[in-house]
Amino acid sequence: MAGNTFGEIFRVTTWGESHGKAVGVVIDGVLPGVSLTDTDIQKELDRRRPGQSAVSTSRNETDTVQILSGIFEGKTTGTPISLVVYNADHDSSAYDALSDTPRPGHADFGYIQKYGIRDHRGGGRSSGRETVGRVAAGAVAKKILSGFGIHIVCHTTQIGSIKASPDILNDLPFEGILENIEKNSVRCADLAAAVLMEAEVLAAREKGDSVGGIVEGLIRGVPAGLGEPVFDKLDADLAKAIMSIGAVKGFEIGGGFEAAEKFGSEFNDAFEIKDGKVMTKTNHAGGILGGISTGNMIRFRAAIKPTPSVSVTQETVDLANNTSVKINILGRHDPVIAPRFVPVGEAMAAIVILDHLMRNEALRSLSHSMRV
Amino acid sequence: MAGNTFGEIFRVTTWGESHGKAVGVVIDGVLPGVSLTDTDIQKELDRRRPGQSAVSTSRNETDTVQILSGIFEGKTTGTPISLVVYNADHDSSAYDALSDTPRPGHADFGYIQKYGIRDHRGGGRSSGRETVGRVAAGAVAKKILSGFGIHIVCHTTQIGSIKASPDILNDLPFEGILENIEKNSVRCADLAAAVLMEAEVLAAREKGDSVGGIVEGLIRGVPAGLGEPVFDKLDADLAKAIMSIGAVKGFEIGGGFEAAEKFGSEFNDAFEIKDGKVMTKTNHAGGILGGISTGNMIRFRAAIKPTPSVSVTQETVDLANNTSVKINILGRHDPVIAPRFVPVGEAMAAIVILDHLMRNEALRSLSHSMRV
Amino acid sequence: MAGNTFGEIFRVTTWGESHGKAVGVVIDGVLPGVSLTDTDIQKELDRRRPGQSAVSTSRNETDTVQILSGIFEGKTTGTPISLVVYNADHDSSAYDALSDTPRPGHADFGYIQKYGIRDHRGGGRSSGRETVGRVAAGAVAKKILSGFGIHIVCHTTQIGSIKASPDILNDLPFEGILENIEKNSVRCADLAAAVLMEAEVLAAREKGDSVGGIVEGLIRGVPAGLGEPVFDKLDADLAKAIMSIGAVKGFEIGGGFEAAEKFGSEFNDAFEIKDGKVMTKTNHAGGILGGISTGNMIRFRAAIKPTPSVSVTQETVDLANNTSVKINILGRHDPVIAPRFVPVGEAMAAIVILDHLMRNEALRSLSHSMRV
Amino acid sequence: MAGNTFGEIFRVTTWGESHGKAVGVVIDGVLPGVSLTDTDIQKELDRRRPGQSAVSTSRNETDTVQILSGIFEGKTTGTPISLVVYNADHDSSAYDALSDTPRPGHADFGYIQKYGIRDHRGGGRSSGRETVGRVAAGAVAKKILSGFGIHIVCHTTQIGSIKASPDILNDLPFEGILENIEKNSVRCADLAAAVLMEAEVLAAREKGDSVGGIVEGLIRGVPAGLGEPVFDKLDADLAKAIMSIGAVKGFEIGGGFEAAEKFGSEFNDAFEIKDGKVMTKTNHAGGILGGISTGNMIRFRAAIKPTPSVSVTQETVDLANNTSVKINILGRHDPVIAPRFVPVGEAMAAIVILDHLMRNEALRSLSHSMRV
Repeated sequence: MAGNTFGEIFRVTTWGESHGKAVGVVIDGVLPGVSLTDTDIQKELDRRRPGQSAVSTSRNETDTVQILSGIFEGKTTGTPISLVVYNADHDSSAYDALSDTPRPGHADFGYIQKYGIRDHRGGGRSSGRETVGRVAAGAVAKKILSGFGIHIVCHTTQIGSIKASPDILNDLPFEGILENIEKNSVRCADLAAAVLMEAEVLAAREKGDSVGGIVEGLIRGVPAGLGEPVFDKLDADLAKAIMSIGAVKGFEIGGGFEAAEKFGSEFNDAFEIKDGKVMTKTNHAGGILGGISTGNMIRFRAAIKPTPSVSVTQETVDLANNTSVKINILGRHDPVIAPRFVPVGEAMAAIVILDHLMRNEALRSLSHSMRV
Repeated sequence: MAGNTFGEIFRVTTWGESHGKAVGVVIDGVLPGVSLTDTDIQKELDRRRPGQSAVSTSRNETDTVQILSGIFEGKTTGTPISLVVYNADHDSSAYDALSDTPRPGHADFGYIQKYGIRDHRGGGRSSGRETVGRVAAGAVAKKILSGFGIHIVCHTTQIGSIKASPDILNDLPFEGILENIEKNSVRCADLAAAVLMEAEVLAAREKGDSVGGIVEGLIRGVPAGLGEPVFDKLDADLAKAIMSIGAVKGFEIGGGFEAAEKFGSEFNDAFEIKDGKVMTKTNHAGGILGGISTGNMIRFRAAIKPTPSVSVTQETVDLANNTSVKINILGRHDPVIAPRFVPVGEAMAAIVILDHLMRNEALRSLSHSMRV
Repeated sequence: MAGNTFGEIFRVTTWGESHGKAVGVVIDGVLPGVSLTDTDIQKELDRRRPGQSAVSTSRNETDTVQILSGIFEGKTTGTPISLVVYNADHDSSAYDALSDTPRPGHADFGYIQKYGIRDHRGGGRSSGRETVGRVAAGAVAKKILSGFGIHIVCHTTQIGSIKASPDILNDLPFEGILENIEKNSVRCADLAAAVLMEAEVLAAREKGDSVGGIVEGLIRGVPAGLGEPVFDKLDADLAKAIMSIGAVKGFEIGGGFEAAEKFGSEFNDAFEIKDGKVMTKTNHAGGILGGISTGNMIRFRAAIKPTPSVSVTQETVDLANNTSVKINILGRHDPVIAPRFVPVGEAMAAIVILDHLMRNEALRSLSHSMRV
Repeated sequence: MAGNTFGEIFRVTTWGESHGKAVGVVIDGVLPGVSLTDTDIQKELDRRRPGQSAVSTSRNETDTVQILSGIFEGKTTGTPISLVVYNADHDSSAYDALSDTPRPGHADFGYIQKYGIRDHRGGGRSSGRETVGRVAAGAVAKKILSGFGIHIVCHTTQIGSIKASPDILNDLPFEGILENIEKNSVRCADLAAAVLMEAEVLAAREKGDSVGGIVEGLIRGVPAGLGEPVFDKLDADLAKAIMSIGAVKGFEIGGGFEAAEKFGSEFNDAFEIKDGKVMTKTNHAGGILGGISTGNMIRFRAAIKPTPSVSVTQETVDLANNTSVKINILGRHDPVIAPRFVPVGEAMAAIVILDHLMRNEALRSLSHSMRV
């Protein structure tokens, strides 16, 4: 109800504030008997970690995860996994000046209106630091999904005016994208475009500004039949999961907004039999029809706004005095969010797919063994 | 879990198949004491009804709603409202030929994979007819929201290559949009563009084809503070609600995908005090920041694919014989979905906003009366 | 949230008022491919129906169920099953006098306080008539459970001061109890005690009074491993399900309140191997340990208060005038509830067991097929 | 779904194993602006702590709580409160011998059947240590409820054959019970009976045995109108909450099982006007009618089985070898559970009442401010 939990069977509850003692997550509905170590989780947290390049904030956290429950002798037991990452000590004094002046583009104003009180230090609960819990839970989901042959990758396809080449991306196999995004700081699989993107980000940073971007997600190996057909369509749940990540302003599945300009005869994907399996010749649907997976690659895109924390002067209001004021946001911030969205988007997609895999299983397995 | 229910406090459960006996909805969590009659619901169902113009299917249903519970002496009692619309008798024989050949662009293949059985008559549960229940529930939500000064409208902004003029739309007040969309069959508030859109649809229909479109939604009067800040962000829940409507391939809030090309300094909305109230000068955020409403107009867009039922020859497979086949889908179908999406989109948006209004209220009201 | 839905995967939503147009239920999460006809449901509704004997109210309803969705060619499709039972026309005028005077022992006062409005005709939503939906849903659950070898029976063990003989009950096999309860109007499997119970009820009825009772439930064939170990223990969910039935004042599992007087050494059930299967020698646990089924017979008991509608003069208050008044409740009412509880208790137990069977299955099935 | 979360709006998720690194809880849906310190929580944990007297286990844990999130400058912020209690280092080697031999009366066998794997050290997740999280969350609920004038107490009324005197209990005001239970180790408000109860426990302990008991709960100050009328009746949710605590075998509200022997004319509670407020003359209902609170004192009872860990020789099976074996459970265990149930029962009752207070508020507050 208060919205800190996601998922129906595989349930993830995150907690923690940016400058509080710790951030963390409780994961319920974990399959028992899965081999799981700190390393499985730490490697995803390391991908999420700030301070890794010139295009991200220089705030440096080691973000070491501790597993507090749910694992016995290296395996999951089916009981909740509690993960905690203690925050380093921060100087929060810079934020005191902002306690009554909501920052443009940030959640500050909504929190004040909603709760009447907020932990304003470092953005508090609305900070991107909340995603530590998501990424940790996503690491668990990814590990389990890999046992069913399901793999996920997100990659940056646009930053500001620079777009990755669709032709280059189409020629890359799934593994090629996985590899390439770790070769540059913007996590773009088109390595030539990546160079231009990095320049775009640094130019904005020079001016104390920030840029937006687009990230694409690919999910391979999802069997046909996942997703509930009415409200909990697989793409509806993916949309919610992705839109729940801060800074996301749009979501597309398959053809997305291009569908508006298409005719039915060109947008429909013809079915064919390929290697004995029913597939579609094209994939404008993005792997989901009527809310249910078709067995094709799932393909979605997220539009990510430019970082709202910019050091140029901005207009806002002083809520204590009900006056207009100008502010300059100090500190070092990410000049672009898209590359840091990548591990978070993968985590949320993994959570949605695993949750639906489990939701579908009761139906599938029991209806096979029933005798009525 | 099986996904036929939407909402946390204001909970809507739809049921029914296209060619079954009836379709309907149970609405739980209704505020008591609200004046509500058949007419409140019937008028929205009439807006949804097919057979109203040349751009929609000629299937004609009277779609008369019956209220079976939850109303006493013209007022809601707080108990569940059960609404039923009996289906007219249909000749379902045309669908028998399609029982083993999934129609491209439709949910058929997914249903067969998921359930091993499906009611293929008229699309069964995956038919657009399921939205009768959504629109009926949305009518109840809209009536209640009007008591809090909250109003919703959806309108078509693009069909195929024809786009409504942003300038004309910007000059129209909210009421102007409400009025204009009832003046043409494509529900476009730019009356000149509407004429071109109608021609675009009829041209496609002539060829046995269909076209896609874009619909914009506006929600006026939402107080600041609605939405839960982490997973159940107001825009995340709107995204899910809208993406759960068949044929929707994309969702944007505020600036949407255009945000990718913007700098932070231009995309951020400056706060100002206007008539004693904190507002933003621009509204790139679309009325929601960090998942919480800001008090500004909420503005979203949905991309809607062309109707998958087209009468041109299509390739598919015969699942019974595992062979490739060609099919021609008979019958009369909507050559465009966007205009018929309008009342459904409004209904889902109303359900989301009312649900969050109720979710927020326990917090708001109790924290004011507490003495700790 | 508003509490008209029960279950997590197998989800039952009831609706309807006693003197409204109809009562009904929507069942979501139904396994596909189950043979199901009107008869499967009607036979349970017939067991619930009033007017069947001298110990129940003479109000006579035919209670004919209509299946509106979710069945295709005699089989469930996995989509929601909507069931409706239209109410006969009633003369509700007798209740008008009671609109401001809450009946002692009834929910009237709470409804007025909670909603500020209520449908007082025949008890409205708080009427036992609401259980029509439960019993209909329970019939579906029972049919599915039978496909997994799971069967349920409830039987009256006490009415007023008359108790069934524990020895006679112990000597009866499960099928013997099933048969015997249909041989008398109080649904007691001890046929000699049944005669005395019937006399007890009729004596109370003569005086315009009513009597309480105890019903025992037995669930056979539940495999070991159902139930979630912390909050959603199988016995906790059974307790909630049974306590949610009107008039129930207590719930026991296995030894129940007698456990208070026992030593650990006598209450613990020793494990043994019987026919190659791990069983317990005694069953003080009632088939559930730590919230998880053990594979033994599940055994619970419910305490049922005497019908609150009695025709003797009672004291209450007139809420309109804030004065004390005396009332005599007119009309013909059940002089005992326990026998009519039997089909409702079976229905709720069936819903709980099926729901947990499905909840457990995702875990069980996936953890077997995983390769991590 | 996996059952580690309780509550709809005020949501409590516990995690942790007895001999794992820590146990804890995440509390979501907390009202903002409540003054809350470590001390509020620690004092309840101290009441729950083992090693406090001769009637409890001598295992001694300091159980110091750490607040990791959700509090800012001494007040709740409305974001999740994460609480952790690190476990002391334990020697778990004694449990290794029991990994394949399920202890009678314990959850061991169910866990093995359900998960195929379990952390057997100290009972793992099924240990009473899980209740640390419940008591910590209950402390937060109690603090908030006190701001609305709602208070809860549980007290032991029976241990083995020794019963507290109903007359003495009736003469004690609510505060008297609160005070008296802290005066003796069995938490009995009848101080004379307490002496006999202590002797009963010690006698059992001498023999390596254990005894059962009954605890009564009283909830004062609950306004009329809480509880949802059909499935989520206030007493049904209390029953589930209490039955979800390990070792509870029965639940009664108000008259409970005695209702079976009563006539309607004697069991009904007459309404009267007292100090201008509608109350009932008697309280056989236990403060709840039709699932909704009446404004009277809520009164429930729980039957608690004798501790299953007894040191007398017991029969069980070796699952690895499929043979019968005898075991002696070593270590020091509580010879009675009832007194230690007291703070846990209070915690669960507090969680249920606060959750329903919040659930009711959206309805109550919005229906007052609506204009339709």
